[in-house]
Amino acid sequence: MENSHGCPRRVKNVSLEELRDRLAEFARVREWEQYHSPRNLLLALVGEVGELSEIFQWKGEVARGLPNWSPTDKEHLEEELSDVLLCLVQLADVCGLDLGQAALTKIHKNAQKYPVNPKISDTTNFPNSYP
Amino acid sequence: MENSHGCPRRVKNVSLEELRDRLAEFARVREWEQYHSPRNLLLALVGEVGELSEIFQWKGEVARGLPNWSPTDKEHLEEELSDVLLCLVQLADVCGLDLGQAALTKIHKNAQKYPVNPKISDTTNFPNSYP
Amino acid sequence: MENSHGCPRRVKNVSLEELRDRLAEFARVREWEQYHSPRNLLLALVGEVGELSEIFQWKGEVARGLPNWSPTDKEHLEEELSDVLLCLVQLADVCGLDLGQAALTKIHKNAQKYPVNPKISDTTNFPNSYP
Amino acid sequence: MENSHGCPRRVKNVSLEELRDRLAEFARVREWEQYHSPRNLLLALVGEVGELSEIFQWKGEVARGLPNWSPTDKEHLEEELSDVLLCLVQLADVCGLDLGQAALTKIHKNAQKYPVNPKISDTTNFPNSYP
Repeated sequence: MENSHGCPRRVKNVSLEELRDRLAEFARVREWEQYHSPRNLLLALVGEVGELSEIFQWKGEVARGLPNWSPTDKEHLEEELSDVLLCLVQLADVCGLDLGQAALTKIHKNAQKYPVNPKISDTTNFPNSYP
Repeated sequence: MENSHGCPRRVKNVSLEELRDRLAEFARVREWEQYHSPRNLLLALVGEVGELSEIFQWKGEVARGLPNWSPTDKEHLEEELSDVLLCLVQLADVCGLDLGQAALTKIHKNAQKYPVNPKISDTTNFPNSYP
Repeated sequence: MENSHGCPRRVKNVSLEELRDRLAEFARVREWEQYHSPRNLLLALVGEVGELSEIFQWKGEVARGLPNWSPTDKEHLEEELSDVLLCLVQLADVCGLDLGQAALTKIHKNAQKYPVNPKISDTTNFPNSYP
Repeated sequence: MENSHGCPRRVKNVSLEELRDRLAEFARVREWEQYHSPRNLLLALVGEVGELSEIFQWKGEVARGLPNWSPTDKEHLEEELSDVLLCLVQLADVCGLDLGQAALTKIHKNAQKYPVNPKISDTTNFPNSYP
């Protein structure tokens, strides 16, 4: 984390593998691995999803692109979205699973489960439990 | 999704940008963008976190690496972890935010907030709301 | 549960103590107490909140009273709301806490924290984390 | 809330109807009903479940009765359990549903779905999604 690239804004493509490795190193040097059991991380994930929900809870419906949100509110949202992601990456890691490959595989399965067909692309085809 | 690379297992590094673009295309060709408002996707994310939790709910504590889990159970877990990730990527996308860069920035902030210091690296330094 | 009153619809006031006692008996006679550790029940609660969210996830904003919902959809919602409640009651019970009294105490605290004052009852007084 | 009974600890049985009525009055006098749409309250519920999870997130498995918890920690837990309950009661209320009766009905359904049978009361009968 304290390496030479300094400003993380200049990085172009962010891979799940990079996040995983950074987070593993982050925990290792702080001796926090002892706390990172699967269920501890799962509950931490739930906690972060709660904080994400709090941002949206009293707002009513929100338009795509968040047109009326202040930069501060958007930054807060970025932080909470990130916290959920970081927990998720760590949870997959301590479970010994490859989250990136799993996600690609799941997109592939979804594409087979919900084929593109203009003739029936109506709401009746929209699944309850998708994505 | 239906392109020539076929087997997604051969891809090495999976970036959040790639997932974002695939999911946006997935929704576009199915005309599902109309359902993908921020709060709809947030509730879908909560639903997926619920399915993820159900896998762990009656198991008691689970060891790192899931030593006693069957391949089927691990695949199920990979799917639920992926569903959470896919909702999260889409939520960030419809909010117009760059999840990968946001995650790197958050790791950077966490590193500053929780400095490595062997002399005080005890449990009192472990934050309640980390990661 | 299989007692003489039969139709639970005739009961007037449903107390948290009654739910707690029924659920404790339900688990006891099925020998399910062994699964009801606090964290197991917490994850079960998260799973039920996920199922509750799935009902609302693709609907956009929903009006008070659910004017356009079918009886079937309302019954489904009643079941999921109940599942969340039942998990919560059991979680409090295995923690040895009195949920009903705790709820009254919390309402009392909230009333002190957010006093009624017509002169300042504007949105700036609406708390971010208030339930 | 500001009535004569003062100390809520003396109340014996707490009914869901009482909580519903108190919360409705609480919102009415503060003119907060405008914020209490079903999806707003649902997201508030998710936020409260997140805060509840944070209490348990780094603790590893927790024994029934919380034998090693301090009174302060138990009080914190009571507050978070209550916040979840209060959101849930309000959500059912704005949906026009009777949560108490729904809960009794659900217990009744569960009793039929999972009959007591000592001869097969083993783990294979324990449902994945049971609360």
